[in-house]
Amino acid sequence: MVKLDFTKSDDGLIPAIAQDYKTGEVLMLAYINEESWAETLKSGCATYWTRSRRKLWKKGESSGNIQEIKEILVDCDDDTVVFKVNQIGNAACHTGHRTCFFRKLEDGELVEVGEKVFNPEDIYK
Amino acid sequence: MVKLDFTKSDDGLIPAIAQDYKTGEVLMLAYINEESWAETLKSGCATYWTRSRRKLWKKGESSGNIQEIKEILVDCDDDTVVFKVNQIGNAACHTGHRTCFFRKLEDGELVEVGEKVFNPEDIYK
Repeated sequence: MVKLDFTKSDDGLIPAIAQDYKTGEVLMLAYINEESWAETLKSGCATYWTRSRRKLWKKGESSGNIQEIKEILVDCDDDTVVFKVNQIGNAACHTGHRTCFFRKLEDGELVEVGEKVFNPEDIYK
Repeated sequence: MVKLDFTKSDDGLIPAIAQDYKTGEVLMLAYINEESWAETLKSGCATYWTRSRRKLWKKGESSGNIQEIKEILVDCDDDTVVFKVNQIGNAACHTGHRTCFFRKLEDGELVEVGEKVFNPEDIYK
């Protein structure tokens, strides 16, 4: 297994950027530890570590919107990765938007620009 | 100034993803604190906080490869940003590659796939 450098932060986490493998859109950023890295490689589905719930988190385990890994890129310092993914359900964000980055800074304010794909109330029951 | 949530990590840093505004290529990930966020907005050039040197870091201050901000996206939790940038000099990585993510995982090994734009020895003297 390719070794990443999990020593840079006290909690042993490094950021993983999920990017749509077709459009190049940045969908979300989450964190991985050694266990989630191993699980991602083994399962072929993006698996993170949630800092709030403090557990392994297979993206899409509640919503069904899993992320199939198409390609993995590793940065020059071995402490950040890009997961190029096929986003099932076309939405990565728990708010129902296609990407977590659905707000753009315009004239000092945040303006919603991203597409809303589903209603969270229909999904998280 | 748009408020971001710098409280999620002990060191008051959040990740900023630099993405080429034309190609969508992810160029690098670095960290910002409140001061670098303010400086980025004021100057229009991506300004990070280096964890190793522990200081404000205007990207390109040594190499000349600054990042002109074209657009800023903020995520649903206010704790990650995407800087869509015009990468001056066509290379973001200190190794001389266009992107820090110049290695791809293939059959369990990292293979160099990214373009090398300059020789670091010519730049960092």
